Amino acid sequence: MRIGFIGLGTMGQPMARHLLRGGHQLALYARRPETLQPFLDEDVQTFKSPAEVAAVSDVVVLMVTATRDVEELLFSDTGVVAGAQPGTLVIDMSTISPEATSTFAVRLAAKQLAMLDAPVSGGSHGAKQATLTIMVGGHKNVFERAQPVFSCLGTNIIHVGDHGAGQVVKACHQLLLLVTAEGVAESLALAQNCGVDPGAAHQVMMSGIASSRVLDLFGSRMVARQFDAGIPVRLYRKDLQIVLDLAKESGAKVPGGILTMDHLSHLASEGHEGTDLSVIITALEQSLARE
Amino acid sequence: MRIGFIGLGTMGQPMARHLLRGGHQLALYARRPETLQPFLDEDVQTFKSPAEVAAVSDVVVLMVTATRDVEELLFSDTGVVAGAQPGTLVIDMSTISPEATSTFAVRLAAKQLAMLDAPVSGGSHGAKQATLTIMVGGHKNVFERAQPVFSCLGTNIIHVGDHGAGQVVKACHQLLLLVTAEGVAESLALAQNCGVDPGAAHQVMMSGIASSRVLDLFGSRMVARQFDAGIPVRLYRKDLQIVLDLAKESGAKVPGGILTMDHLSHLASEGHEGTDLSVIITALEQSLARE
Repeated sequence: MRIGFIGLGTMGQPMARHLLRGGHQLALYARRPETLQPFLDEDVQTFKSPAEVAAVSDVVVLMVTATRDVEELLFSDTGVVAGAQPGTLVIDMSTISPEATSTFAVRLAAKQLAMLDAPVSGGSHGAKQATLTIMVGGHKNVFERAQPVFSCLGTNIIHVGDHGAGQVVKACHQLLLLVTAEGVAESLALAQNCGVDPGAAHQVMMSGIASSRVLDLFGSRMVARQFDAGIPVRLYRKDLQIVLDLAKESGAKVPGGILTMDHLSHLASEGHEGTDLSVIITALEQSLARE
Repeated sequence: MRIGFIGLGTMGQPMARHLLRGGHQLALYARRPETLQPFLDEDVQTFKSPAEVAAVSDVVVLMVTATRDVEELLFSDTGVVAGAQPGTLVIDMSTISPEATSTFAVRLAAKQLAMLDAPVSGGSHGAKQATLTIMVGGHKNVFERAQPVFSCLGTNIIHVGDHGAGQVVKACHQLLLLVTAEGVAESLALAQNCGVDPGAAHQVMMSGIASSRVLDLFGSRMVARQFDAGIPVRLYRKDLQIVLDLAKESGAKVPGGILTMDHLSHLASEGHEGTDLSVIITALEQSLARE
């Protein structure tokens, strides 16, 4: 397939490489030209606008950060819509607002462009290993058409419903991840406050019913006080804001999500926007110190 | 070893059976005589008081529900202390207050009786399969002495500190389990509120970084609306009260624990004391309906 790929960040770069290895032709656009550097020795085409990328692509994949990024890349004067032939498929793998996603799908359909929302879980490790979980919203037949793309990138590829449903499930996933991280932080801080070795508590919890990938990954970093790796607080705040907006719109109750946002916002205000999520344990320690 | 075993409930019954199969001699006492029934065909001795059990035992294991149960079984006129020879080891595998445990250890030491707190994770399935996680507080040399008991019951046997430390770690474990369950409930309720199939959301989350044993076990029951199996709300409320007391005493912050307790208390007030923990998802749905 001729695939346009836009967004060569931590996630996008290894994903684009897997598409190349999968035998696809790649057309690239990057808002930050330096992210094209690793592809200069590869057999790819690079362009100066999303419109030019779209003009030579059967499928355009977006892997960027925010809802407004996706909107601009699609609908600006030099955006995907300005260059795409009717029938082109837009796959947005970013994590953005489900409501906006549904609106984008309608606007694209009016131009005879198909769309799937296909956010992922698995982090940079999953992107590098091509073991991402991909949750897909959109029409089932379009989902089938996109399999040659998805199969290069992930191992769990699940169609979860119509336009926006992929983003809804991603929001649910991030909510669970973050509330679990809050629980891990509270548990390890409780052990420490009671004079019990958090490492021993972590070891026990990993073999008990309370065990989780979050306990394994972020709990280990909390125990080791290593807050410099992984995905920064900034991105989790962005995702959690999507959750809180979605809860408000749909009337769902997410008190654990609200509580966790309080901690992330406090951490951000203290200069921890770029720190790993595991730093959330210090929000509990700080709230102790503040009293 | 000559082992006295007190508390033949859902957990205690399979545990006692594993000790028998492990070649130990068993002396039993039960507050509810009907729980002795399954052992009448076995080569065990039964007694009418904890004191009589203790008199013929090298080790006395307790597996009961509440702090006051343990206190009474140990220190009443016909309790363990009244019958035990100096040097007898008391292993309390119940989930009770860490503070009370430390006090009990001191009172037993004054009678030259050793003690370990050794609560477990793994539920009735782990008890039946002898795959329990056992978190042990007390002196290291006493911990070594108890290995012939523990090795019959569990696969992860971890010494976590001095008297009470086993109960502290169990409290941390239950806090994490319950906050994770709150996160699972919020996530699945959010999916449902947004018109997305909770089963699809569950499937995706199980393969993502948000996956956990709680999502697997309790999340599946929430999706299937099967609230009649497993460990009842009543026992989790008891455990969570231990967590909240411990947090208060130690100055630790457990906002997620407090939030989850609100939901469990609400469920209890609506007659769900005996319902499986997975019913917590209805607390979110009800709070929606109440507005």
